[in-house]
Amino acid sequence: MYKVKVYVTLRENVLDPQGNAVKGALHSLSYHEVQDVRIGKFMELTLAKSDRDIDELVKDMCEKLLANTVIEDYRYDIEEVVVQ
Amino acid sequence: MYKVKVYVTLRENVLDPQGNAVKGALHSLSYHEVQDVRIGKFMELTLAKSDRDIDELVKDMCEKLLANTVIEDYRYDIEEVVVQ
Repeated sequence: MYKVKVYVTLRENVLDPQGNAVKGALHSLSYHEVQDVRIGKFMELTLAKSDRDIDELVKDMCEKLLANTVIEDYRYDIEEVVVQ
Repeated sequence: MYKVKVYVTLRENVLDPQGNAVKGALHSLSYHEVQDVRIGKFMELTLAKSDRDIDELVKDMCEKLLANTVIEDYRYDIEEVVVQ
């Protein structure tokens, strides 16, 4: 079994209105230290073992569904879990 | 300057309809290895230095705005960046 963590973030040159809204809200709560906020997605997947290569499988899933590669970047960590 | 990464995830006993939808979509794309998907948020904040303690500041922001602690857990990493 594998536990996979996928991080999807907006590319650097893409505007992030949600992040700007959060920044504004933090400023209005007097957190004036905040200079920038970028919001992305964090996904935790549990995968069963199969014949397919796990790294390729996760990359495939990211490219096809989990991330929109036109405007988003992704990275992932794969951790193998031994079920006892 | 600090770069702070905040991870907000749904608590374990809270249903995740968005995660279930993604799981269904992955299955329909023939990724039958996928057993579970949980979706959370990933936020990257840039903070200026101030008199306030950075750890307390971030915790405060999470409790007050970034996470809904009734249904969500959060964790964060703080990295100090030296501007040259």
